[in-house]
Amino acid sequence: MSTPQSGRGVHSGPVIALDAMGGDHGPREAVRGAVQAVREHGLSVVLVGRRPELAGLLAEEDAAGAVPIRHAEDTLTMHEGALASWRRPRSSIAVACRLIRQGEASALVSTGSTGGVVTTSTVRLRTQHGIMRPALAVSLPTRPRPTVLLDAGANADAKPEMLVQFAHLGAAYARSAFGTRNPKVAMLTIGAEPGKGNRLARKTADLLTAAAAQAPQSQRLDFRGNVEGHDLLAGEVDVVVTDGFTGNVALKTVEGAVRFTMDAVTEAMTSSTAAKAGAFLQRKGLRELRNRLDSETYGGAVLLGLNASVVIAHGASRAPAVERACRLAHDLTSGGIGEEVRSRVQAGARSARRSRTGSGGEDQPAT
Amino acid sequence: MSTPQSGRGVHSGPVIALDAMGGDHGPREAVRGAVQAVREHGLSVVLVGRRPELAGLLAEEDAAGAVPIRHAEDTLTMHEGALASWRRPRSSIAVACRLIRQGEASALVSTGSTGGVVTTSTVRLRTQHGIMRPALAVSLPTRPRPTVLLDAGANADAKPEMLVQFAHLGAAYARSAFGTRNPKVAMLTIGAEPGKGNRLARKTADLLTAAAAQAPQSQRLDFRGNVEGHDLLAGEVDVVVTDGFTGNVALKTVEGAVRFTMDAVTEAMTSSTAAKAGAFLQRKGLRELRNRLDSETYGGAVLLGLNASVVIAHGASRAPAVERACRLAHDLTSGGIGEEVRSRVQAGARSARRSRTGSGGEDQPAT
Repeated sequence: MSTPQSGRGVHSGPVIALDAMGGDHGPREAVRGAVQAVREHGLSVVLVGRRPELAGLLAEEDAAGAVPIRHAEDTLTMHEGALASWRRPRSSIAVACRLIRQGEASALVSTGSTGGVVTTSTVRLRTQHGIMRPALAVSLPTRPRPTVLLDAGANADAKPEMLVQFAHLGAAYARSAFGTRNPKVAMLTIGAEPGKGNRLARKTADLLTAAAAQAPQSQRLDFRGNVEGHDLLAGEVDVVVTDGFTGNVALKTVEGAVRFTMDAVTEAMTSSTAAKAGAFLQRKGLRELRNRLDSETYGGAVLLGLNASVVIAHGASRAPAVERACRLAHDLTSGGIGEEVRSRVQAGARSARRSRTGSGGEDQPAT
Repeated sequence: MSTPQSGRGVHSGPVIALDAMGGDHGPREAVRGAVQAVREHGLSVVLVGRRPELAGLLAEEDAAGAVPIRHAEDTLTMHEGALASWRRPRSSIAVACRLIRQGEASALVSTGSTGGVVTTSTVRLRTQHGIMRPALAVSLPTRPRPTVLLDAGANADAKPEMLVQFAHLGAAYARSAFGTRNPKVAMLTIGAEPGKGNRLARKTADLLTAAAAQAPQSQRLDFRGNVEGHDLLAGEVDVVVTDGFTGNVALKTVEGAVRFTMDAVTEAMTSSTAAKAGAFLQRKGLRELRNRLDSETYGGAVLLGLNASVVIAHGASRAPAVERACRLAHDLTSGGIGEEVRSRVQAGARSARRSRTGSGGEDQPAT
């Protein structure tokens, strides 16, 4: 647990490097979010971006000096591709990664484009020892708890062994972010029965069943088998594992279908005078619902499996979303997600070795 | 255009073999739907299933003799797998396929399980000449016109060349079912820019771009490039092509997210006294909306690319859904979807050969 060099000393816990230049609304919302995170939650944040601009915005918020700044002269727009962001070492996201590699910060929050953040942070922070690829995790607005969906798009082409690691990453995330003690893990496929799905899903299900049976108790996956698309929002499992292509399609389909339905409801509610009167009586409940289902509210993807927690606030994030992203980065890092991933992956590798040499546990399904 | 052997001669057009034994609600709803299709729309339908049972139900509907019956002694339940249905030649679905092969009917409607119908009809009706695999097409409740999504689950593992054929199948379907003259076709992937997606999607996009440039005008694909999950319900394209794994996940995710949102709206609308009063004023519009979005209402998947049109009514179909499925089978067959698929596939094969021998058109993108 390091403290920021230029911090004021009153804050403790992990230092969060906030790439403040990336969002759709410019750095103002990031600066506001950082000030809230520092003042209201006592977090340690370092703003990364063009110093004159950030200092001016802090002063406008009546918070000059309240949040330390690290200068980065270059800025990537939301529309620059992943490759551009990777090539530019002076961009705010690259400088934020450098702070982490130098030990001056231990988590990253960015409002930049998902593709750019994934590429840059994967190259600059690298995966944890033993992790093949990082996975992008999102939280779906299910009840009673959010369901974690991963990979939501970091790896368009995945291997079964990667998906098993994603299951461990997702379980560690559900525990760190939502306090779920024994996360129930399922695999997204077509058809609920065992043996359904494409080649990748079938092979992955076999490996997950074996991993559930073989790992030692503390790192055991509670693998509940297959779920289908209509189960994503049922809230019955804590983690849903899939490849990044399917996961990204599913996530965006959820977002689109929720928006489509809410728009259709609004239209139906104003289609007659009686309906309009009804809509007036409904407005509070529906506004709250729209907020709950709004991707900006539950949004904030997390890139798991790197040598630091990386939270990607939605590009259209306003200050409260940036503040929530900082709190999530803080919770993940303080909660020791890195250590949990390490022990889970080591246990997974050991049991895979035992399984290959034939000395491992019984091949019984977990469910 | 054949007429049923036992038909009454007053009806014309293609004969529809209706597998009446498969649905969740038993044959009663299928019989009612068939009677409506015959009496109200003048369609030619043959009921296939246990004769005594079907004759009794017809009599109860005051329609004894109104719809011819072909006896099939065996019946598959919704829960029997695809393999079971394939092995049982005396099942109602198998007998219905036999009617078609013998020229006594030219389209199939079933209320059975999708897996069973897909497997049985693929084996027994076979694909049209030149078609690699059939594809399952569904209509999404978009406006102004439904968007056709395919493959919705017939092929969990697909090749790029299959997806190009699916694009032609979907275009032919949009024309026959909805009268769309030049259907706009897009591919479902992650990221809207060219070159995004997994290996399958990238290769398919290349082939679709080439197919759009090279085919003769009448069979040309109007390929509009990539769409993402949140575009599925936007109604901006007529056909969305994907593999059966991704398509099935996307379809079920749409269904689940629409249901989830409607349930959340209902809950929000009854959360206070004012909201309840509002809900009372809203009930008509929202009931209509629920009907419009209900998968049973827009449901009815179509298996395209076989030697007859195959319409799979939702397993929970009531009589009106069965009647609509019969009308759809009639429209597809009368509209000559078989011939259109044939000419499109032949043109596609010719242009692919030209392309391989280097004598074909320019490699310009369609958009």
